[in-house]
Amino acid sequence: MNDLQQVNGGITAAQGFRAAGVEAHIKYANRKDFALIVSDRPANAAGLFTTNAVAAAPVRLGRERLAGGRLRAIAVNTGFANACTGEQGMENARAMSRLVSGALGIPDEETIVCSTGVIGMHLPMERIAAGVELAQAALDPAGGADAATAIMTTDTVSKQHAVRFQVDGHPVTVGGMCKGAGMIEPYLATMLGFITTDASVAPADLREALRAAVEVSFNRVVIDNDRSTNDTVIVMANGASAAPALSPAHPAWPRFTAALTAVCTELARQMVMDGEGVTKFVTLRVTGARSADDAQLAARAIARSMLVKTSWYGLDPNWGRVIAAVGYSGAAVEESLVRIRYGDILAFDRGRVADAATRAALKEVMRERAFEVGVDLGLGDGDCTIFTCDLSREYVNINADYTT
Amino acid sequence: MNDLQQVNGGITAAQGFRAAGVEAHIKYANRKDFALIVSDRPANAAGLFTTNAVAAAPVRLGRERLAGGRLRAIAVNTGFANACTGEQGMENARAMSRLVSGALGIPDEETIVCSTGVIGMHLPMERIAAGVELAQAALDPAGGADAATAIMTTDTVSKQHAVRFQVDGHPVTVGGMCKGAGMIEPYLATMLGFITTDASVAPADLREALRAAVEVSFNRVVIDNDRSTNDTVIVMANGASAAPALSPAHPAWPRFTAALTAVCTELARQMVMDGEGVTKFVTLRVTGARSADDAQLAARAIARSMLVKTSWYGLDPNWGRVIAAVGYSGAAVEESLVRIRYGDILAFDRGRVADAATRAALKEVMRERAFEVGVDLGLGDGDCTIFTCDLSREYVNINADYTT
Repeated sequence: MNDLQQVNGGITAAQGFRAAGVEAHIKYANRKDFALIVSDRPANAAGLFTTNAVAAAPVRLGRERLAGGRLRAIAVNTGFANACTGEQGMENARAMSRLVSGALGIPDEETIVCSTGVIGMHLPMERIAAGVELAQAALDPAGGADAATAIMTTDTVSKQHAVRFQVDGHPVTVGGMCKGAGMIEPYLATMLGFITTDASVAPADLREALRAAVEVSFNRVVIDNDRSTNDTVIVMANGASAAPALSPAHPAWPRFTAALTAVCTELARQMVMDGEGVTKFVTLRVTGARSADDAQLAARAIARSMLVKTSWYGLDPNWGRVIAAVGYSGAAVEESLVRIRYGDILAFDRGRVADAATRAALKEVMRERAFEVGVDLGLGDGDCTIFTCDLSREYVNINADYTT
Repeated sequence: MNDLQQVNGGITAAQGFRAAGVEAHIKYANRKDFALIVSDRPANAAGLFTTNAVAAAPVRLGRERLAGGRLRAIAVNTGFANACTGEQGMENARAMSRLVSGALGIPDEETIVCSTGVIGMHLPMERIAAGVELAQAALDPAGGADAATAIMTTDTVSKQHAVRFQVDGHPVTVGGMCKGAGMIEPYLATMLGFITTDASVAPADLREALRAAVEVSFNRVVIDNDRSTNDTVIVMANGASAAPALSPAHPAWPRFTAALTAVCTELARQMVMDGEGVTKFVTLRVTGARSADDAQLAARAIARSMLVKTSWYGLDPNWGRVIAAVGYSGAAVEESLVRIRYGDILAFDRGRVADAATRAALKEVMRERAFEVGVDLGLGDGDCTIFTCDLSREYVNINADYTT
């Protein structure tokens, strides 16, 4: 059986992982705000961090820690980002790590800490210490849901996903969780993503698999240059399944990368759906661009346009705003070659404008909570798919009705 | 007397210009929607148009018309942008121009038409014709206010400004009007700006003066790549004043360019203040950048950040969002060298975080309707000033209180 099977458990769906999410009162009362993920055995690991030139202390420490490619535990606090906190921030990140490794009795170099919240304020270390203690006591092989709740900031729902596949008759699981809401485009609140698997995979292969999966999932939601000071995605592979070690040479490798990509993509989708005030999930496909880079330029310009986003909210098939965004994106465009569709309905066909009946059909497509917008530039074979959303709320009262 | 004196009259403040704004029912009833500006004598002229690769038909025609450097009349309709309208769009733009030049008895090559509104729908030519007729009958040397009202779309107030200075004892006037609201950053509804002067200035000099004035005014509000399909700024200089001809060699030239810049800057300021839901006008000064380009990158990233904008609305001196925006802007930045101030109060001083008392003082600065935010990168002497605004409304209910 080659198919991926969806399973419950999120970050603890894979064998050999425990997790916890506890109330450490780090900034607010009555909410889980401290999470801990632990592999029962040393795990290979890989991570991707923000490209922001102003990286938070835990990000800088995390880069060091992942150089070794091995990890046992990840601790996450919300409330404070520990960014722009200078030397004391680095000391606090190291101290938080020592609290975790000490409590768990694991090597400090195999511990990673992550923070999300307000920039420029120091971590309340006593509360962090209390959080570590509480979380360690609460570690549970079914703790994924609590952990997913504990990493939320402005998120309205927790985000988890896990899938299972077979290798030589042995089940292998990949599961994960993430946080991130805010306006997904163009500016993202800190995105944290954590993935665990009981597959056995070497660090270098794991890193390449993660990079490829993130490229078509989280990176298609988040614009590289717009990363927060704390964005982080980490994967741990502890080999606790009975399946043989996987590598690109193994016939099951494509199944593993497909599972990893599926988890990342589903988490990215959940993140977009949880964008503040989002009512529409839009899959935006740009095709026919002169190059893949051009396709990405065009797709990102469309996805970032507040005017386009408000038109989606207002069920207004205002393709003019779409083509205007392509026009300033920097991508090569010939107005007379462009085709724009909503779902399967053509709105603009190389100069031909949709008639009234077509407009009604376009509106029907947009009534769905999730729909696809396609833009074919007719110039080449560059393509790019972006996951994005509408922009609702009061802002829309002014913009959404502009053409109707 | 070298000082600029503010005068009334907007686009008709200068001698030898008449204007009108009429209700042509182009798209809506009961609103002025068609404007006409006419110089009583041939005027030298220059213009700047959108850099959007998908330029509207009137923009393409306007570029042709301004090649000659002479202009007699500008006609503007709202409701329809005449963009993405193919060959028929160009025919309609030409036909609109012929209606105007025919009615006024002027050369068609000295006529420019501008459109703003919905993309992808054809101009209702009968209503345009009616508008031309009505506007011609209403032309008035005091018609500036009507014209400024007639070019409004989502604008809530009309925007005019005019100044006067003396050359050899002769008054010379520069006046203008503009439209543009929507979310000023990062996406602008079409911006149209029109400026008239009774100075006598050669087309090439006029063009250079306009380019310089726009660079530090409209272009510091609008991001170049984000221009709409229709953005246009045009200046007409008809020489109707009794003052001698001006050129860069004339001692009064700096006064003329100062006047032109003052009009453009004040119109840009009015445009920002009329941004949808704007409650704060922020002058953002980035200094100490490694280069002027870096300063601009940093300033634009800050000004575009929804998180920064909502913090301004919420009176939250959240400088962390400012430094995060600089971090992903692409500009060189060393966290330990950065200083951020609100008004004259330092919020972040090379690693030193503001204390509680300072936070209260920062909030006081932000209570003003207009305030300045300064970011010194401490790396060089590149600087850039941007005029921007907050982001208010429901979106803010979620974001503005995040750190308080």
